[in-house]
Amino acid sequence: MLTPTLEEGRKLTDAALERLLPGPNTRPTSVHRAMRHSVFAGGKRIRPILCMEAGRAVAGSLPAGIEELGAALEMLHTYSLIHDDLPALDNDDLRRGRPTCHKVYGEAIAILAGDALQTQAYEVLSQLQCSADARVRIIEEIARGTGTVNGMIGGQVVDLEAERTRPNAETLEYIHRSKTAALITASVVTGGIYADADAKQVESLRRFGKAIGLAFQIVDDILDVTQTSEQLGKTAGKDVASEKATYPALFGLEESRKKAQALLEDAYKSVQNLGHGNEALKNIARFLIERES
Amino acid sequence: MLTPTLEEGRKLTDAALERLLPGPNTRPTSVHRAMRHSVFAGGKRIRPILCMEAGRAVAGSLPAGIEELGAALEMLHTYSLIHDDLPALDNDDLRRGRPTCHKVYGEAIAILAGDALQTQAYEVLSQLQCSADARVRIIEEIARGTGTVNGMIGGQVVDLEAERTRPNAETLEYIHRSKTAALITASVVTGGIYADADAKQVESLRRFGKAIGLAFQIVDDILDVTQTSEQLGKTAGKDVASEKATYPALFGLEESRKKAQALLEDAYKSVQNLGHGNEALKNIARFLIERES
Repeated sequence: MLTPTLEEGRKLTDAALERLLPGPNTRPTSVHRAMRHSVFAGGKRIRPILCMEAGRAVAGSLPAGIEELGAALEMLHTYSLIHDDLPALDNDDLRRGRPTCHKVYGEAIAILAGDALQTQAYEVLSQLQCSADARVRIIEEIARGTGTVNGMIGGQVVDLEAERTRPNAETLEYIHRSKTAALITASVVTGGIYADADAKQVESLRRFGKAIGLAFQIVDDILDVTQTSEQLGKTAGKDVASEKATYPALFGLEESRKKAQALLEDAYKSVQNLGHGNEALKNIARFLIERES
Repeated sequence: MLTPTLEEGRKLTDAALERLLPGPNTRPTSVHRAMRHSVFAGGKRIRPILCMEAGRAVAGSLPAGIEELGAALEMLHTYSLIHDDLPALDNDDLRRGRPTCHKVYGEAIAILAGDALQTQAYEVLSQLQCSADARVRIIEEIARGTGTVNGMIGGQVVDLEAERTRPNAETLEYIHRSKTAALITASVVTGGIYADADAKQVESLRRFGKAIGLAFQIVDDILDVTQTSEQLGKTAGKDVASEKATYPALFGLEESRKKAQALLEDAYKSVQNLGHGNEALKNIARFLIERES
């Protein structure tokens, strides 16, 4: 029952990305190939899918063209991965079993490919098939969610600075809420705005996004401890090895699992009265929290 | 006669930047201090000034709030400088006589500070005090002007790849038009859009921007050969030392000077019938082309 939604969402997102990114033979080819290398590296397209299902829940059916908003969100997520993997940051050679962008194209092109994915995302957002008013609201939500104050970059900065220290619970929650949950929240909220959600619906979606965004990252922390590298498709146990701040390290496995489950319940409750059915949104939330890789 | 416009424009831009950037004590402080280090490093604010004067020429007086558009353009210019200076790219320790961002804050924070200035620029653009319709047109122009296809990042990529080769005139013009002129053009055009320019006025401003953008970079190339490091406030002769593609290297000094002068004449002609007087725009164009540092 869940699989068709995920599969449909991934296909729609991939087709939009294919259409909206410059081709591999467009000059300058190196940067366009580097962008595509990382964008088409087998991501689950979680943010676009959440965005599209939020739009569907508000409008009753998938709003025309919403997959372009999804594609822009995926470009932003990918830019952050390319820069996170750089030698000066996490120094990762592999992602999803493939060499990272800078391993294939060199650091200079990887930095510029990340920059360019951010730029391309805003070009796409400026041309979405919704009203200009909705477009500027969407751009504002996304810029905030990926910015330095309680947004993605802010979370990344505090995460970097917390390495090899033992951050307290408040700092850990700041990192998770900012680094991961803020863009997930923006994905859900902007899907709603695209579908003309009213203020109450936007706030329901925001609460839903915050809950599953934080739960998603707690589950990531848990899987790093409990799964093998083969199961994850990336190096397991890396957080422990690098003494990274995680929920299991701070609260233990059992408490972390309880926290994720409580957030899932809160997510369910948030979208209880959303409008046109919220089964798909709830299913995806459950899938994200109960996944094993 | 010229100085008041430049001085006024710089002050307006700096005040807007001060207001629109997170404060140095806002968490996480490192990235906000790094952003401010580079933004307040004594730049001439050429792009904001061109933008504001384009708006004034169209509207007859400075449109309210246009300095926020100028500030966003300066954030984008600064992000590109921070990333260009990184060890993986141009590896510059000094800019305008001050240590570059990564020399003070480290590579990781410099990468993220550059990213964040791009993000912050779009947040500012989404909230400009003009119509939502003008805002999305402005965002589209700026994203294109700083993107990979004939935009700033594209020019930077081709420039990097042309190092230590001997590019032909076509490649050199592509680099200069994309790396420098595209954002200068977007600055002039979006200033016009902010002031409700009609299609004909936008095209006049676009031609003006392209001409002075290319001329500006040719003059930069000339100054690198003819001036001392003290006069420039940066390392002179660097292009020759790194065998970089430049106009003087390809066409000689005399021919390069003629080309810049011809572009200046074309710029004058472009804004001949703009509307409310174009003296300030023409003065700035002349200042940019006849400057000695």
